[in-house]
Amino acid sequence: MAKKEKTKLLPLRVFSLGGIDEIGKNMTVLEYGDDIIIVDCGLGFPDDEMLGVDLVIPDITYLTENIDKVRGIVLTHGHEDHIGALPYILKTIHAPVYGTRLTLGIVENKLMEHRFEVQPRLLCVEAGDTVRLGVFTAEFIHVNHSIADACAIAIRTPQGIVFHTGDFKLDLTPIEGNVMDIARIGAIGNEGVRLLLCESTNVERPGYTPSEKNVGRSLEDIFSKNKDKRIVIATFSSNVHRVQQIIDISARMNRKVAITGRSMLNIVSAAIRLGYMNVPDGVLIDINEIRRFKPESLTLVTTGSQGEPMSALYRMAMSAHDKVELGAKDVVIISAHAIPGNEKLVGKIVNEMFKKNVTVLYDSLVEVHVSGHACREEIKLMHALTKPEFFMPVHGEYKHLICHKALAEEMGMPSNHIFVSPDIGHVLEITESGAKWNGTVPAGKVLVDGYGVGDVGNIVLRDRKHLSEDGLIVIVATVDSRDGYIVSGPDMISRGFVYVREAEGLMEQTRAIARDVINECLDENNHDWADVKNRIKDALTRFLSGKTGRKPMILPVIMDI
Amino acid sequence: MAKKEKTKLLPLRVFSLGGIDEIGKNMTVLEYGDDIIIVDCGLGFPDDEMLGVDLVIPDITYLTENIDKVRGIVLTHGHEDHIGALPYILKTIHAPVYGTRLTLGIVENKLMEHRFEVQPRLLCVEAGDTVRLGVFTAEFIHVNHSIADACAIAIRTPQGIVFHTGDFKLDLTPIEGNVMDIARIGAIGNEGVRLLLCESTNVERPGYTPSEKNVGRSLEDIFSKNKDKRIVIATFSSNVHRVQQIIDISARMNRKVAITGRSMLNIVSAAIRLGYMNVPDGVLIDINEIRRFKPESLTLVTTGSQGEPMSALYRMAMSAHDKVELGAKDVVIISAHAIPGNEKLVGKIVNEMFKKNVTVLYDSLVEVHVSGHACREEIKLMHALTKPEFFMPVHGEYKHLICHKALAEEMGMPSNHIFVSPDIGHVLEITESGAKWNGTVPAGKVLVDGYGVGDVGNIVLRDRKHLSEDGLIVIVATVDSRDGYIVSGPDMISRGFVYVREAEGLMEQTRAIARDVINECLDENNHDWADVKNRIKDALTRFLSGKTGRKPMILPVIMDI
Repeated sequence: MAKKEKTKLLPLRVFSLGGIDEIGKNMTVLEYGDDIIIVDCGLGFPDDEMLGVDLVIPDITYLTENIDKVRGIVLTHGHEDHIGALPYILKTIHAPVYGTRLTLGIVENKLMEHRFEVQPRLLCVEAGDTVRLGVFTAEFIHVNHSIADACAIAIRTPQGIVFHTGDFKLDLTPIEGNVMDIARIGAIGNEGVRLLLCESTNVERPGYTPSEKNVGRSLEDIFSKNKDKRIVIATFSSNVHRVQQIIDISARMNRKVAITGRSMLNIVSAAIRLGYMNVPDGVLIDINEIRRFKPESLTLVTTGSQGEPMSALYRMAMSAHDKVELGAKDVVIISAHAIPGNEKLVGKIVNEMFKKNVTVLYDSLVEVHVSGHACREEIKLMHALTKPEFFMPVHGEYKHLICHKALAEEMGMPSNHIFVSPDIGHVLEITESGAKWNGTVPAGKVLVDGYGVGDVGNIVLRDRKHLSEDGLIVIVATVDSRDGYIVSGPDMISRGFVYVREAEGLMEQTRAIARDVINECLDENNHDWADVKNRIKDALTRFLSGKTGRKPMILPVIMDI
Repeated sequence: MAKKEKTKLLPLRVFSLGGIDEIGKNMTVLEYGDDIIIVDCGLGFPDDEMLGVDLVIPDITYLTENIDKVRGIVLTHGHEDHIGALPYILKTIHAPVYGTRLTLGIVENKLMEHRFEVQPRLLCVEAGDTVRLGVFTAEFIHVNHSIADACAIAIRTPQGIVFHTGDFKLDLTPIEGNVMDIARIGAIGNEGVRLLLCESTNVERPGYTPSEKNVGRSLEDIFSKNKDKRIVIATFSSNVHRVQQIIDISARMNRKVAITGRSMLNIVSAAIRLGYMNVPDGVLIDINEIRRFKPESLTLVTTGSQGEPMSALYRMAMSAHDKVELGAKDVVIISAHAIPGNEKLVGKIVNEMFKKNVTVLYDSLVEVHVSGHACREEIKLMHALTKPEFFMPVHGEYKHLICHKALAEEMGMPSNHIFVSPDIGHVLEITESGAKWNGTVPAGKVLVDGYGVGDVGNIVLRDRKHLSEDGLIVIVATVDSRDGYIVSGPDMISRGFVYVREAEGLMEQTRAIARDVINECLDENNHDWADVKNRIKDALTRFLSGKTGRKPMILPVIMDI
């Protein structure tokens, strides 16, 4: 009998559908033969060019085309950029979703706002658990982050272990629970990691990210110095540990705590229900009860730390909150760092509050916030623990990925073992003999606007941009093409172009030009209305741009009776 | 003969028309009896709400109403936020403009693009000079800043000295010229300053701003390490000293320097012509000549350090520059800090360049930029030198002004001697007996859009915002109201709402609803077209918002023949 041939392995394919060369919308896919496993399913926020767009989700064409292969979605933690696209994706992909208790609690909250034909299956795990998903197994490993119950995930594949850090930091004095499970990560590293996928958010920052405890110390100090004032703290609703610290300090200083802002109420109630927060009896009160207490015995915890219009803090700053009026007897703490793009929004509410004589404390003045992401030394620690054969930086703009590559090289990793994905959708193929890029899968941004998913594209956005800059002019005329005369009009409507009441002359001239063009065309017996409209557009654009330096969108309508 | 009575003095009135609770658009006015003197005349940049607006200038209603009183405009330095509104203001206010040589050189450049009925008078001074302007005299005093030839201004008034710092920093190792004239400022302080107006830009930052020399050292280091590469440096065109350092280092390292970007070419040529820059023979070459030299013997100095779309660096990053193609043999240095609001623009070009395998160095990685503004200790030095009786913080958002107030209090200044202007246009009145707020003058933001100055207001901006978010739908119908039927239409045009080709059903339903409403109205003999249009708007808004979650602008046009 011939010697049994060793079964040849298939290649493992790894690619991102989001989170590469962009912030947020994190989604990583592993594929081996007939099995696919997905890590995270996040949303992104629209950039400045995506006017009117509410949010951005991954293009999952590849997954729908291979829908029978998808064995499951594993979640690292409950932040929007890791779970926010689930309500959309789960309408198509009916795979089970695995996550820790708090993560799934937040997911459940989100799913409730959507309707599903096939009810999603959410399967709860805890750090240390391993689940089998087709040919893969996924082990959840405790890490520290700015939300409780965050995990890295070690995925065992026929081609070896793929270690995905998720978002993490090393907190040696965490608020609840344990320090990141260094021992387990080290053990997996000793076992042998084929591929490390490591987040890159703070890779430009030297040193270590400070412990969440530091924030507690700062807050304690601020509370002690402001015993005669009401304290209002805005922070990320998902930062359960931050809120826990605020509650603990308030309880110690005999303050009642009231929560305001929808997402803060949602997450705090979920966290309490699931046992992630520990609130001494009688400390939490309803925001409607605050009038019953002296201001100096109150702490308010609120959303709006990013200056979001219509958030609770925004409404307080603009005197539009129905329960809270801010004044000289308030200390407002913004316990957050402005996400790039939000600096001006945050600045705006800070200025407004100062005008109300509020004492405002924010992160450029005191340490009232720490990041949830690993800085360079912590990232190095992750590399040192996992000792991967291959490495692909994830979660970052391109500059972060390149910077992360340099860090790995600094630690001695050979350059040709580091794979910076040029964009989302590039497939890294791992075989016994090594790793290499091999083709792409469809990937992109699907824009969500209102109830519409994917119905806003480049043409719509280009028009919105044009309209936003110079407005529009509608020119309407009813003509009788047979007898060759204008029956009615041309009428003109302008919006967003110029203040019409003060520009009557200009408007009259514009109308006259349009009339002349139409009459000209009628005289020429030109009934090619597309051509007539183009001639109107050209004439008006030339005239208005010369007069005003602007190019409003010109929309001619000719009705022929 | 009766003892001659001492002439009673008039009050001195001081107010800002810009630069208070806003960044940029700096303009301060001093008024005594029949004399007005203006310090600076800057522009501001539109905020995110000002869609399509190019720039913002001060409302000068008060000055035009008191045009005969205006004795002159004194300029502290040549940055846009201090001189940029001059071309607009000088069309109305025909007062002489005083500034140092480089400042006026830049002003001249700007004025050339505009036409004037009365040619502006520009009068050149140098640091140390004093000019008389009605009852006032203004003394120009050398300070350090990120542009050469910057001055503080000490204005002698019948009510004592008003000291305006302009923008400043203390640079103990400046590139050209001298350290800020500490001795003179101290002497004026000893003479007695009634009112200090001090800039507040960096008042949140502790310590001292580093010297411009530090940037030179970093650049020198980068040049030494990259002898085999072409070096491209983006910086602020007005930072003559920065460009001088780049030229010096390049010359020492046998590199030719080519300049690209319109404003960079303008300012560098002005600076060379006026003797503010010193270029060794043969070092500067035209950008068209770069093909004649080896890349590693070239330095390119470019605009675009803020990621401005269509700037030279932007075009290079996007492969749209006709002379420069970036690649692996280039080092690009962004020698600037992103101004709040520009972070994403800068990030975008950095990412694009990394994708071209360019080595990109920017301020979070190396010290390739220092601020031009005083940090807290330098601001304290200014207070210590001038020892003012009264103090009004200027140049900053409200939070900066409040933070500056706290700094002055920390230095022992009584709170009631510190005047934080609640907004622009508030008049601080100084008399022998003290200082107090006394009324307001008209003040505000005049929006410049194309050639239009002030013709874009809230209604236009509100419409632009609406259009930018949800687009529009135009509904046109020709009706015969006498016989009560629709002659033609309703036709429909949509822009920026939804991709029409994929939403034909929706569009057809929308048109049907409009037709029904019009027919209903015709049946009711309702010829109140305003009412008919409102009914169309309501019906379509309800339908579309239910279907799509969006509220496009609805523009109905009814033509009755």
